[in-house]
Amino acid sequence: MSETTPLGIIAGAGAFPLALARAAEAQGRPVFAILLKGIAGKELEAYPHAWVGIGQFGAICAQARRAGCRDLVLIGSLVRPNLWTTLPDIGALKTLPEVLRLYRGGDDHLLSGIARLFEREGFRLVGAHEVAPGLVMPEGRLAGPEPDADDRDDIAMARAAIAALGPYDVGQGIVIGRRRIVAVEGAEGTDGMLERCAAMVASGRIRWGKGVGILVKAPKPQQDRRIDMPAIGPATVDKAAAAGLRGIAVVAGSTLVVEMDEVVRRADRHGVFVLGVGAEAGP
Amino acid sequence: MSETTPLGIIAGAGAFPLALARAAEAQGRPVFAILLKGIAGKELEAYPHAWVGIGQFGAICAQARRAGCRDLVLIGSLVRPNLWTTLPDIGALKTLPEVLRLYRGGDDHLLSGIARLFEREGFRLVGAHEVAPGLVMPEGRLAGPEPDADDRDDIAMARAAIAALGPYDVGQGIVIGRRRIVAVEGAEGTDGMLERCAAMVASGRIRWGKGVGILVKAPKPQQDRRIDMPAIGPATVDKAAAAGLRGIAVVAGSTLVVEMDEVVRRADRHGVFVLGVGAEAGP
Repeated sequence: MSETTPLGIIAGAGAFPLALARAAEAQGRPVFAILLKGIAGKELEAYPHAWVGIGQFGAICAQARRAGCRDLVLIGSLVRPNLWTTLPDIGALKTLPEVLRLYRGGDDHLLSGIARLFEREGFRLVGAHEVAPGLVMPEGRLAGPEPDADDRDDIAMARAAIAALGPYDVGQGIVIGRRRIVAVEGAEGTDGMLERCAAMVASGRIRWGKGVGILVKAPKPQQDRRIDMPAIGPATVDKAAAAGLRGIAVVAGSTLVVEMDEVVRRADRHGVFVLGVGAEAGP
Repeated sequence: MSETTPLGIIAGAGAFPLALARAAEAQGRPVFAILLKGIAGKELEAYPHAWVGIGQFGAICAQARRAGCRDLVLIGSLVRPNLWTTLPDIGALKTLPEVLRLYRGGDDHLLSGIARLFEREGFRLVGAHEVAPGLVMPEGRLAGPEPDADDRDDIAMARAAIAALGPYDVGQGIVIGRRRIVAVEGAEGTDGMLERCAAMVASGRIRWGKGVGILVKAPKPQQDRRIDMPAIGPATVDKAAAAGLRGIAVVAGSTLVVEMDEVVRRADRHGVFVLGVGAEAGP
């Protein structure tokens, strides 16, 4: 890693960009923040920064180059519509057929297409997990009660289903209870899926006692973890608890955890386990 | 089929039970309606009938036997919580381990377990599609515009994803547009999934033009079509239109269509295609 150059943080929404900037700073690495207009928060204005439109690919590259960045991290959530509406600006810079190829297919194609474009401009895309291992989910139980054999069974089944959906670029999250999958994550995202589960519990459509359901998140097999890594945070824990879930299982080493201390505190308070499972799915 | 005996229609909610009773009647076959309390509508009271609680397995069998039924059809929707809360009554009649096995696993296990219980009592479970072929989706375009090559491509991809989820007993329906799967059906059901898509379109989370998205429904490979067949009706068409979808594709011969005339009328009015695809998934 070219650690003497400033780390270029292309920042979307949420708490991750600031956490990453702080982690880089703690390692003595300078930061240059490229803040996406209408998406990123203002917290990173404390660092050297520039505001750019998400579709202004040329401006992003120019700012990063001017600041002396070689390594770039894409971090924070990008609400989907922005990607869709702004990609045509990239199209103006590149050949149309290539951009059209980006449009077809799911997130993975879109995002890995974007990664290729940056690399062609001479940058190196690095994953947040490489720069800030402290933001990454550790293996084992992080908080809450100890998962039992039924939980492990459910987690293995959900991971197998996520893997089966991998080729179709959907379903990075599943809610399961006693071998019954009740929700598969689509464009609504994890929060939307958990809210749906809470509503189904409230309406009686899901009727399991507290201490059954589990949120399982895992990257799709072909997912490029530099640009699209599963993530959880305090809000995930709150929403899981609101849906009456017993726990959250994510893949250790391949999941970002924002505000890990707060995640632990809330999980312990709600009695919801947070578990980092091994990279290999298995029973 | 023992067509001289009355057809026992164990009726859940929705319009299918009445449509099935009329179809049987039109064939000259007597009907005996076993109406599930709190679930079935009153329309079938026009036929010889009895009201029973869904958990009263013994009473259902006794009523059917008394009416001289040998063939039984389970039809109409059973809101999931009823199954869950009432199965313990079956437990009182059967050995506990067997019932516990029914509890584990998804709908398929639960439903095929119920089928086995009826068969052990000497009844024959027949599918609505066997009794009333007129309620079954035909092959080809039933209504709306002609699907194009991109649509066929999307339909094939969605069917492959549904097949991949088959072993996990979830995902009988998918909403897809230009090779991007935006929603996978879980416990919320098809209507719930379409409402979610409409909300995501309204919020800008899905931003495709009218004339892109498709609802694809297909039975899971191992699904017992006698007791759990995909179904669409006029409300499906309305909700698909509200979500801005371009069409609905279901498997010909393996999907029930309630009020087919009305489905056609509304699909033509909304400009939403309704397509019956072949039993074999493929491009």
